[in-house]
Amino acid sequence: MKMIDVMECVSLLKEFDNYLILSHRNPDGDTLGSAFALKRALDLLGKKSMVRCNDEMADKFSYLWQNLDNSEIKFDKIIAVDVADKKLLGEEFEAKYGDNVFLCIDHHMSNREYAENLLLEDRAAAAVVIYEVICELGVEITPEIANCVYTGLATDTGCFMFSNTTPTVHRIAAEVMEKGADYTLINRLMFETRTLSYIKLEQMAVASIESHFNGKCAIMIITQEMFKESGSDESECDGIASIPRKIEGVKVGVTIREQTNGKYKVSLRTVEPFDAAKICSHFGGGGHNRAAGCEFDCSLDKVKIQLLSKIADCFE
Amino acid sequence: MKMIDVMECVSLLKEFDNYLILSHRNPDGDTLGSAFALKRALDLLGKKSMVRCNDEMADKFSYLWQNLDNSEIKFDKIIAVDVADKKLLGEEFEAKYGDNVFLCIDHHMSNREYAENLLLEDRAAAAVVIYEVICELGVEITPEIANCVYTGLATDTGCFMFSNTTPTVHRIAAEVMEKGADYTLINRLMFETRTLSYIKLEQMAVASIESHFNGKCAIMIITQEMFKESGSDESECDGIASIPRKIEGVKVGVTIREQTNGKYKVSLRTVEPFDAAKICSHFGGGGHNRAAGCEFDCSLDKVKIQLLSKIADCFE
Repeated sequence: MKMIDVMECVSLLKEFDNYLILSHRNPDGDTLGSAFALKRALDLLGKKSMVRCNDEMADKFSYLWQNLDNSEIKFDKIIAVDVADKKLLGEEFEAKYGDNVFLCIDHHMSNREYAENLLLEDRAAAAVVIYEVICELGVEITPEIANCVYTGLATDTGCFMFSNTTPTVHRIAAEVMEKGADYTLINRLMFETRTLSYIKLEQMAVASIESHFNGKCAIMIITQEMFKESGSDESECDGIASIPRKIEGVKVGVTIREQTNGKYKVSLRTVEPFDAAKICSHFGGGGHNRAAGCEFDCSLDKVKIQLLSKIADCFE
Repeated sequence: MKMIDVMECVSLLKEFDNYLILSHRNPDGDTLGSAFALKRALDLLGKKSMVRCNDEMADKFSYLWQNLDNSEIKFDKIIAVDVADKKLLGEEFEAKYGDNVFLCIDHHMSNREYAENLLLEDRAAAAVVIYEVICELGVEITPEIANCVYTGLATDTGCFMFSNTTPTVHRIAAEVMEKGADYTLINRLMFETRTLSYIKLEQMAVASIESHFNGKCAIMIITQEMFKESGSDESECDGIASIPRKIEGVKVGVTIREQTNGKYKVSLRTVEPFDAAKICSHFGGGGHNRAAGCEFDCSLDKVKIQLLSKIADCFE
């Protein structure tokens, strides 16, 4: 369990031949883009690997594993990518693999250091870290790797809109575009394609928005009922948590999603200087300064009261 | 009236000392960002200039002209920036200045060549052209100029999401961020800040969406009644025209906005290979391949029928 740098990470990767690469539960574009970029790079080095996730990988990401052999292998070592805490592997995977992760490649401040740890906290996306690793591995950036890296960059920065976007992110975007990343397709799939059912869900969710602390905090609720009525589902909701913060004057935007198991998943989005990760840490969650999450197993009213009391503290 | 390159444009700019810089009507981030970037560069060269527009410049852009003397001057020559056609100066300004534009700096394919013309059609934003001009002028990119350039880049590419985004756009974004562009503020102002009234308007507009040609075309209508009911107005609607194309399966997204004078303003957004500018050109409009516009002075039903008949042609 020690912190390592990119060079040391590359040495470790070269040491073994068969890897299981894990992404975090509820997989998003950064964890999957990073995992498949790494797998594709290891393939080019003649190593064997497979990417696995506790939860289903949404169809819209299928270009990431196109023309790839991701079948079952016997592995020597486990690599976790964009997974800040072994809990975030998901319940089943945590039990199965949590204590045996060999190498963690990540960019979250809230990282719990549960393996050899390449942790670059100032990188906007895990895909930036992976890109640096792949370049250091001396592997060619193929158009497929370029697609994977671009996906991580674009999804974790809200298509270069969030405050975590850096000049480096833009430069890597330029480089992978030149290496053949199909950014038009990826942007359409990640940001532009909405089903009519999702648009209906968004309408209902927006109608639920309530305002607190003189408009400085907005809370949006998404219930299982809304999913049923609109025909939409969780897999379409990647960007929905950014809505409350978009309202003029809102400093802390909260999205509360009812899960199928009755628990509530909370996403916080904040404006400087309000620290989303700090608020969520009170409830066992984590993330980044501007975007973080946590979970509750109690009634909706109690979720709100607990959240509002902690949010109140930061407005004082 | 001849085509010139960046070097020739720089020579022309150096020749005179007092400029009127014009942006297009209904001014957006690119025309204003480009105009004020140019003015700020001319200021640094010790020249006098003023930026003017036929229509009001929205408050949200006010950082572009912060700490700037934009008062009335006597000018020698007129420069139009991001104005493809003198008609787009707006009615009053076209009558007043249309025939006397000295220099046009633009990036629209549909440009009508009404002045000495620095036209770089492959640039995603007029701000890219202006950035090249300013670099060639040998002027330092101040944080204020960086803000102006970033605004043009980001707004004309939908925050680096549209297919017109190029590696060059990302690299210039990285450069102006390093020169001090306050991208967090600008992205918030341009893309993230929504008033509650706008959110209401969007809900009504989304509810109006109708689907044609088996879902390949979606038409969204925004009426004056909706503006009244929601409390929103035209100045908040910059990004609204991108909504219809976001629906899964839509190839041609149409937004029809009723104007206060009873006319209808139409915005088209298309997916490759459908040519938005070509469709709009049938109605005296223009723009880019993926994003174009035109105007109608007839009933809403007639607007729809005329548009649908031309859109039908491209699905054949």
